[in-house]
Amino acid sequence: MNIITISRQYGSGGREIGEKLANKLQVPFFDKELIIMAAKKSGMSEEVFKSVDERAASSFLYSLWMNGYSYGIPTATNHLPLNDQLFILQTELIKNAAEKGPCVIVGRCADYILRERHDVLHVFLYADESFRAKRAIQKYGEDEKKIHEILIKKDKQRSNYYNFYSDTRWNDPQNYHLCLNTGALGIDNSLEMILKAYKIIQP
Amino acid sequence: MNIITISRQYGSGGREIGEKLANKLQVPFFDKELIIMAAKKSGMSEEVFKSVDERAASSFLYSLWMNGYSYGIPTATNHLPLNDQLFILQTELIKNAAEKGPCVIVGRCADYILRERHDVLHVFLYADESFRAKRAIQKYGEDEKKIHEILIKKDKQRSNYYNFYSDTRWNDPQNYHLCLNTGALGIDNSLEMILKAYKIIQP
Repeated sequence: MNIITISRQYGSGGREIGEKLANKLQVPFFDKELIIMAAKKSGMSEEVFKSVDERAASSFLYSLWMNGYSYGIPTATNHLPLNDQLFILQTELIKNAAEKGPCVIVGRCADYILRERHDVLHVFLYADESFRAKRAIQKYGEDEKKIHEILIKKDKQRSNYYNFYSDTRWNDPQNYHLCLNTGALGIDNSLEMILKAYKIIQP
Repeated sequence: MNIITISRQYGSGGREIGEKLANKLQVPFFDKELIIMAAKKSGMSEEVFKSVDERAASSFLYSLWMNGYSYGIPTATNHLPLNDQLFILQTELIKNAAEKGPCVIVGRCADYILRERHDVLHVFLYADESFRAKRAIQKYGEDEKKIHEILIKKDKQRSNYYNFYSDTRWNDPQNYHLCLNTGALGIDNSLEMILKAYKIIQP
């Protein structure tokens, strides 16, 4: 196994677990880093890309572009909504990262983008609301009063993004090798279980 | 942790893993056993119950009965479709089994029925179609030519049953502590991962 992809509910500890995994395995880690890389590659603003990261535009233009692409005639992307441009850039960056060697990638449909490789462990992380609320308030400074709505909105965004750019559903276990309730298992135990699966599954 | 519930796609190895778990932990195992127990308890035929096991009747009568039950006025069940009668009997048997002590229970909405207990590990097992097809043909003698349709039909039955008698979706990770792809991980490794989670999560 070379690569690990982590899909995750907001506040479930995906970034923390991903970083720890990458440290343990001594491999590169990609999460928000992919926005910076996309900005550099395109010459566009990081801030602008941040505002559309992991959000689907559900654009008809993207469907047209993808249709051309699947027939081997990709056209220019600069007429597409920024969301779509970022997705296309991140797709390329994720494929390149995987080509270069072992790494850990969080979010951004990485499991779907790398679905044809056989050296990737796909993980989905989730937790109950109270666990995620606590983390989101502590780690990301979210507003305690609005946290219920924030969690719903963030996961809806991620789910829409995934469902739009893939042909499957974000929280369908079938997309993953294992799905873990990080709230019940704890962050460090989840890490250990992923490492165990990583060792078990070899291409 | 006292109890383990296993929800499973048809052919994913739920029964085998459940039996091995129960053996390792030296605790009682319930799967089809619950049909025999329900038959004995009710004085009805095992064969008749087998034919409706884990199949929802989606009956309006059950909704009426449940409505009475939730107000503390359960009425007689003998006017209900057999599916509903079996579900009500199995619910009682599952709750009693859990009261008696540690055990492993496969299928039959056990995770939903025991959702208020804090000493239960909930597991969902799934696998890709080729793995499940192979097992279903070898282990249960299913017809190779019809296996694709059989897998879809069986999982639809289980999913309908769960979705009807619970207020959530069968393959939603949120109902479980961990979900494992037994095809990718293998039966014995899945067993080990469940035992690891069982040791991690203590009430």
